[in-house]
Amino acid sequence: MLVVGTGLLGASVGLALRRADVDVLLEDTDDAARDEAVARGAGRARRDGDVPVLVVVAVPPAAAGAVLARELARWPQATVTDVTSVKTRPLAQAVAAGGGAERLVGGHPMAGREVSGPGAARADLFDDRVWVLTPLPGTEPERLEQVRALVQTCGGLPVQLAPEDHDRAVALTSHSPQVLSSLLASRLADAQQAYVEVSGQGLRDVTRIAASDPALWAEILGANATPVADVLDVVAQDLARVVDALRALGGSGADPEPREVLVDVLARGNAGHARVPGKHGAEARPYVAVPVKVADRPGELARLFVAAGDLGINLEDVRIEHVLGRPSGLVELAVRPAVAADLVEGLRRRGFDVRA
Amino acid sequence: MLVVGTGLLGASVGLALRRADVDVLLEDTDDAARDEAVARGAGRARRDGDVPVLVVVAVPPAAAGAVLARELARWPQATVTDVTSVKTRPLAQAVAAGGGAERLVGGHPMAGREVSGPGAARADLFDDRVWVLTPLPGTEPERLEQVRALVQTCGGLPVQLAPEDHDRAVALTSHSPQVLSSLLASRLADAQQAYVEVSGQGLRDVTRIAASDPALWAEILGANATPVADVLDVVAQDLARVVDALRALGGSGADPEPREVLVDVLARGNAGHARVPGKHGAEARPYVAVPVKVADRPGELARLFVAAGDLGINLEDVRIEHVLGRPSGLVELAVRPAVAADLVEGLRRRGFDVRA
Repeated sequence: MLVVGTGLLGASVGLALRRADVDVLLEDTDDAARDEAVARGAGRARRDGDVPVLVVVAVPPAAAGAVLARELARWPQATVTDVTSVKTRPLAQAVAAGGGAERLVGGHPMAGREVSGPGAARADLFDDRVWVLTPLPGTEPERLEQVRALVQTCGGLPVQLAPEDHDRAVALTSHSPQVLSSLLASRLADAQQAYVEVSGQGLRDVTRIAASDPALWAEILGANATPVADVLDVVAQDLARVVDALRALGGSGADPEPREVLVDVLARGNAGHARVPGKHGAEARPYVAVPVKVADRPGELARLFVAAGDLGINLEDVRIEHVLGRPSGLVELAVRPAVAADLVEGLRRRGFDVRA
Repeated sequence: MLVVGTGLLGASVGLALRRADVDVLLEDTDDAARDEAVARGAGRARRDGDVPVLVVVAVPPAAAGAVLARELARWPQATVTDVTSVKTRPLAQAVAAGGGAERLVGGHPMAGREVSGPGAARADLFDDRVWVLTPLPGTEPERLEQVRALVQTCGGLPVQLAPEDHDRAVALTSHSPQVLSSLLASRLADAQQAYVEVSGQGLRDVTRIAASDPALWAEILGANATPVADVLDVVAQDLARVVDALRALGGSGADPEPREVLVDVLARGNAGHARVPGKHGAEARPYVAVPVKVADRPGELARLFVAAGDLGINLEDVRIEHVLGRPSGLVELAVRPAVAADLVEGLRRRGFDVRA
């Protein structure tokens, strides 16, 4: 097994494979990065005569196509895969450069960290994470099975998609949300302080991913430019309809049924929200939120979770609401509807301030 | 004290004031709603001869202006306030109808529930919540003080803004996020199931508020139409720049510096994100996230929070990451940077699988 590129993802692949005692060869254009990955136990430096059966290309999106082509040519027997967050363009570049589609299987683990480099690598980075595999029409089935086994050895959950479908999927579920979150957050950059202070959990949620790294995301968006533009074009059309409706309601527009436009957009938002996968990738389930007021000091959350555990109730999610200027918080415990009443009653019996 | 309109907010005002033994009179066009509020202890039905010194108008946004005008005319000595989520238009309507600006103080408690009606009312709904007060230029200072005292009696935190500033603030921090979240979520409504399945926490966060009630939100957006349109117009311009840049990067556009456009938008998003208030309305603080893997069964979270409590470390926030198809989850504990190392070390000593 050869890993080309020993940044966060490449070094993590090495660490994950070493858990299973796989012989991992490491290469990087930066000797220091390769040496750090070796020192961390992600594998060993490749020596002359080492011939890999499977090559994992883990380089930045802009370089992926060229490096895939190079590795296909360099190891004429090897299966070659990658971990790039876009798929169509690098795979097409690789095949256009010299063929080898029958040995090429695109890959994209849905895992990452806010930090980068081999020092941030983790053996368990891919555990329980979806890892999309995108074989080409000409890919040999046994090559796909080989990469699938690699993913499973790394702890990931293989999911198969065509490269174009992968790119349209992440355009919709990852790249377009990033753009819209950044655009909204950028409206706050120059806003009056008094305006920003009148904000709640909704704003925090919508803008959380606006903290992402601009250089990295510009590269990701650029590499998947057309599918992202296709999604955002439709969003822009809908946005224009909303603005027209608002102008009409504000007295300076001619939309004949402005309220209907708003209700329609909001209702379609409901329908889309209902499809966002819930916990463990399952269909979104209607959890019940049980709000509990707790003092903001060490041990208070513990007391609450101990009580829930004592009641034998599994918490599906936890949300801590942020309260301005006071030493207390509202904690929302999300549970299955069937156990909500038991939780409320049980917590109250233990003296908790349940707000349900 | 007279409360006009005994829905969720009006009945909650009554309950909150009754905690302080204030004599609360209740009115509603719907006798059943008033009777339910009385039965719940929010106050008593107004009798002939009862003359309020302060009137709280708690009716839907579309009715607020007319009811404020009516109450100002009906009680020539009383101070009149409201709890409507938009301020400029209803206050202007009220004054235009018959004057009384000197006795009028707009109000907007930043509190609500997903449920409505007097049956959902709570005495503590406003505890520790920002309650914006919007006096008019002609409002007498003692009237403002009277309403400020009311807010404090209800447990709220009074914050003063001009009506126009309030409306621009909520357009920015509440109404525009709602529109963008709904627009993004609506793209998922008809998406292929395989696309929706390739999604992570980012999409969940950005689309969470897209579950909001369409009819209510159409009314809110309509009542604050121009400030919301002003924010969304700028978002639409930025969005058009992003789409142009993506088209150029996709090979079908002429933007001369498309990558620079993307980096600029993403970097401004960083700057705006940094201004979103953190916990307790404080300036956003850079918390450190400590990831811990826990089994998805009752008691596991308890064990974790007990350990954090034992270590004397206060958890600023908790995020449970959702993992596809596996009975385990990643819990992120957000703590102040100064205590992060202690938490990591202490949890590891207790056998926790800390991923930091």
